[in-house]
Amino acid sequence: MSSEQTKQDLSSSYFKDLLPYAETKHVTEEFVGQVTKKLIDFLEQSNDRSNKVCEFHPPEELKKKLDLSLHDKPESLDTLLSHVDSILKYAVKTGHPRYFNQLWAGVDLSALMGEWITATTNTNMFTYEIAPVYIVMEQTVLEKMRQIVGFENGDGLMYPGGSISNIQAMALARYKFCPDFKEKGIFGTKPLISFTSEEAHYSLTKAGALLGLGMDNVVKVSTDAKGKMMPSDLRKKIKEHLAKGNQPFFVTATAATTVGGAYDPFHEISAICKEYNLWMHIDSCWGGGCLMSPKHKHLMDGCHKADSIAWNPHKLMNCLLQCSVLLVKENGLLEACNSTRASYLFQKDKKLYDVAWDTGDKTFQCGRHNDILKLWLMWKAKGSNGIAEQVDIAFSNSLYLSEQVKKRDNFELLREPEGTNVCFQYIPPRIAAMPDSPEKFEQLYKVPPEIKKRITLDGTLYVGYQPLKEHGNFFRMINVAPHVTHKDMDFVLDEIERCGKDL
Amino acid sequence: MSSEQTKQDLSSSYFKDLLPYAETKHVTEEFVGQVTKKLIDFLEQSNDRSNKVCEFHPPEELKKKLDLSLHDKPESLDTLLSHVDSILKYAVKTGHPRYFNQLWAGVDLSALMGEWITATTNTNMFTYEIAPVYIVMEQTVLEKMRQIVGFENGDGLMYPGGSISNIQAMALARYKFCPDFKEKGIFGTKPLISFTSEEAHYSLTKAGALLGLGMDNVVKVSTDAKGKMMPSDLRKKIKEHLAKGNQPFFVTATAATTVGGAYDPFHEISAICKEYNLWMHIDSCWGGGCLMSPKHKHLMDGCHKADSIAWNPHKLMNCLLQCSVLLVKENGLLEACNSTRASYLFQKDKKLYDVAWDTGDKTFQCGRHNDILKLWLMWKAKGSNGIAEQVDIAFSNSLYLSEQVKKRDNFELLREPEGTNVCFQYIPPRIAAMPDSPEKFEQLYKVPPEIKKRITLDGTLYVGYQPLKEHGNFFRMINVAPHVTHKDMDFVLDEIERCGKDL
Repeated sequence: MSSEQTKQDLSSSYFKDLLPYAETKHVTEEFVGQVTKKLIDFLEQSNDRSNKVCEFHPPEELKKKLDLSLHDKPESLDTLLSHVDSILKYAVKTGHPRYFNQLWAGVDLSALMGEWITATTNTNMFTYEIAPVYIVMEQTVLEKMRQIVGFENGDGLMYPGGSISNIQAMALARYKFCPDFKEKGIFGTKPLISFTSEEAHYSLTKAGALLGLGMDNVVKVSTDAKGKMMPSDLRKKIKEHLAKGNQPFFVTATAATTVGGAYDPFHEISAICKEYNLWMHIDSCWGGGCLMSPKHKHLMDGCHKADSIAWNPHKLMNCLLQCSVLLVKENGLLEACNSTRASYLFQKDKKLYDVAWDTGDKTFQCGRHNDILKLWLMWKAKGSNGIAEQVDIAFSNSLYLSEQVKKRDNFELLREPEGTNVCFQYIPPRIAAMPDSPEKFEQLYKVPPEIKKRITLDGTLYVGYQPLKEHGNFFRMINVAPHVTHKDMDFVLDEIERCGKDL
Repeated sequence: MSSEQTKQDLSSSYFKDLLPYAETKHVTEEFVGQVTKKLIDFLEQSNDRSNKVCEFHPPEELKKKLDLSLHDKPESLDTLLSHVDSILKYAVKTGHPRYFNQLWAGVDLSALMGEWITATTNTNMFTYEIAPVYIVMEQTVLEKMRQIVGFENGDGLMYPGGSISNIQAMALARYKFCPDFKEKGIFGTKPLISFTSEEAHYSLTKAGALLGLGMDNVVKVSTDAKGKMMPSDLRKKIKEHLAKGNQPFFVTATAATTVGGAYDPFHEISAICKEYNLWMHIDSCWGGGCLMSPKHKHLMDGCHKADSIAWNPHKLMNCLLQCSVLLVKENGLLEACNSTRASYLFQKDKKLYDVAWDTGDKTFQCGRHNDILKLWLMWKAKGSNGIAEQVDIAFSNSLYLSEQVKKRDNFELLREPEGTNVCFQYIPPRIAAMPDSPEKFEQLYKVPPEIKKRITLDGTLYVGYQPLKEHGNFFRMINVAPHVTHKDMDFVLDEIERCGKDL
């Protein structure tokens, strides 16, 4: 096909020329080929440290740069391709080695191909008949992950995000506590109390609100200087609520905490849960990936004692978003808790296969996105050893960073890192020279937002800041992606200093 | 680069050779190129009616045909590519013109490119700073959709599936009914009662269980002969619960019902909701797409009176999975209901932009998948007119099918279709000759599972069956995809007859 012909096709094209709705495939090939080329270029640019992480503009400005409005008439494929250029131009390059803003980073290519295949085979995970390959694949991977955490049997499912996994875990625990709640509701009962550390993820609080338990009944247990839940305080608070006539039912331990990266003491928490007959859940959405590393898996020691574990391979395992797993020790409970047995979807008289393979009644969702292929394909591509190596690189970078923070003037490490989070303060010389006072700290805590603004506009780095407990704003660095080096850690500190030394 | 060199690279490759972790991109190009070629071939095969919709095998057999197990060592790119072949070989071709199993079908190429870009730009929708393009894009599209349903202002968000949208709507209504529930829980109150039709989607029942209200307190309102909610019965049941001292707070009308395709009477339901001060939600996940068609949008007449509307563009609008929207009339309520104001994510002292653009506190999730780009790109590619044309094709196919069912011997239409669902029975000659008796119906209701088994194994068609109210199993055909023709409708009936006439 001549390029002129293609040109003509692309400018006059309408959706009917595209597969699967067309008789010929050359327009499809051209369109897909051009998009693919742009995406490979985007990945290459993301890997080049001399490029900006993002060409950042505030919302109102960005809207002016994009032609977002929707019209009655179709646009030509050429116009569509120019939209793709704009999208990629202003997108955050989350695969960039200097992207550290959230608890995930990097764009793994095998996972990416998995996601492209997922999109192209466009299906849903609720029944075997429409997703046969993916259902058996999900079963295989979940079994492997149960082995890794140390559940001998059990069940599990992939959910759209770790918060939903945590919500599901809390709902399971409530069902186990009293199955009648499913039909009758919780109106007639004493308050149901759940516990998690004061540094745990906010999804537990949201879960309390959603499940009708109330945010106030998600009790915050104190943490020690390392950010770990204090078992003594957990026991004390359980007793207080029992004394009030309330009903403790659920404890969430965290691995690792969102800001501090702390791993809670699972053995001690488990002992308390057993004593008071409480469900023990581990939110290891962020830090569970250390289980892949022989060197670092000790951080999850005792996790096999939990009743359920949430683990997001899209975080420390470096898979693509969104990839979240909930593992449950007791088989059958997911279905008992969630099933309504909709007769139009989960026909018990199916003659093609055992309907126990249908997963739809294991969740409060109906449609469920296929999140398994990207994980499976990445695992095949890297092997468990390759994933372990990645995890070790992330830990090594964080250890190096924390050492550099301690060595440098004007930087202060807030805690020795346990996971890959490194929390530190940058203190500009002018503020460092001030005597300790409320005013000094007020000024200090305004530093990270200002530095973040400058760095983001320069595009050299994406890094997060936040307050925690007695500390006002400080920087939280995390490490995930395997193409990040010790030099990048030096760069992070250099950049923060460069953008903040005059403050 | 010589093909021999590529060959060598592909067999020896390890993940480190791949972008974004590599210094060179030729292995990436080769790998991506090969996967892309396979995917285009898959789409082309999906469009060829002479190919099977699926090469179906039961789970245990399929597992033997696939090499699913995960190992310590990485596999070569050649091996990965052979896995891709296997996955595509046994995948259901949901883009095939004879795939009618669920309430979505077809693989729109512009949406597909949107999803590939989404995967490659791997980000999350909770804050503007990491998804600037997608956040302003989502805002633009939601505004357009609010205009279409007739909400003058308001809010909205995309959720991972229609069930989650319905759960969110019920939670919003509960919050509006009594904001204190968010902190305190619902323990001290009289049962909160919601209402929906007996033919509504099971997600409303699941929502009742999850929210702690109990499935029994999701009251089923009777439907008329067309499958529409009966306002008189709604009023009667509200009164009954008020008389008991219970607290009605939420009514879900449906558009269209999952099996029958009925649209509930919105004006009458709205009048009752206003009278008793109840939140009116419309679950138009399935049928909302008719709003795009000037010819069929009358089915949604009165929808602007609702307080919230769930609408899945991945269904009748023919976008890719997963694409689900919840529109809310009252601005600010999503955030009030869901917010916990996590200080590490939604910093109020951000200096780069107005944090009102961050969407994370509008949902009970934390991470939220980017589902907007595929919809936006498809809308750009087709225009509203192109989408309208698609919807009209789907309705035309269903009307034609229902006429053929009525014309044919041994077929029986159960209801005149309102949406694109066509519910019908096939009665094999032997059973047709039997006098009416319980035994006759027992045998008749075993026919669809047996036909489905035969058709699926032959691979010619994917179609669903189920029971409903007084009817035992029957076939439910739906239409969505625009490459389906009247001839395909004839083929469906021919195939059912071919596979069932000896039963």
